[in-house]
Amino acid sequence: MVKMIALYKHPEDLDAFTQHYFGRHLELNGKTPGLIRTEVSKFFDLRGGTPEHYLMCEMYFENLDTLKASFKTPESQAAGADLQSFAGGLVSFSFAEVVAG
Amino acid sequence: MVKMIALYKHPEDLDAFTQHYFGRHLELNGKTPGLIRTEVSKFFDLRGGTPEHYLMCEMYFENLDTLKASFKTPESQAAGADLQSFAGGLVSFSFAEVVAG
Repeated sequence: MVKMIALYKHPEDLDAFTQHYFGRHLELNGKTPGLIRTEVSKFFDLRGGTPEHYLMCEMYFENLDTLKASFKTPESQAAGADLQSFAGGLVSFSFAEVVAG
Repeated sequence: MVKMIALYKHPEDLDAFTQHYFGRHLELNGKTPGLIRTEVSKFFDLRGGTPEHYLMCEMYFENLDTLKASFKTPESQAAGADLQSFAGGLVSFSFAEVVAG
């Protein structure tokens, strides 16, 4: 299993971001072919401070081939275009293979 | 559900790190009371470069109370001491609540 990890900085307009992300983007993202599971997590600081990032979204695929193949689909491209429309400057991506657990 | 996320920089001695981490640390860590699930992922770069981090370990707990309570247990403290013995300068922690997926 591999995953694409989207890491979001804190948005300036939290309400607008949250509304678009949870009300629209996640549904679009969920249509990505080959996507097995999505896990969205909101960071918090144990001491009540501000964590470095706001949100993390992990998207699981069977393997690297299915992940790469998904990029070429209209559904993935639509989700990507939507993302850029409201969070282009906030998000960064990394990729990882699940090796235990 | 909440998770503690341990993020590891690339170790200088990869073999020694890997041997200790997968051969010893994960087993110790798995004994932490209240720990529901652990997922370990190894980062890769889509273009074959070197990713920013080497490894991520996500440890899931039912809620913040069970996570905090686990810190006080001998098992968690043993895992923490073991971690400091071979990866103290490599690891950083963050915390997140799973909000979707």
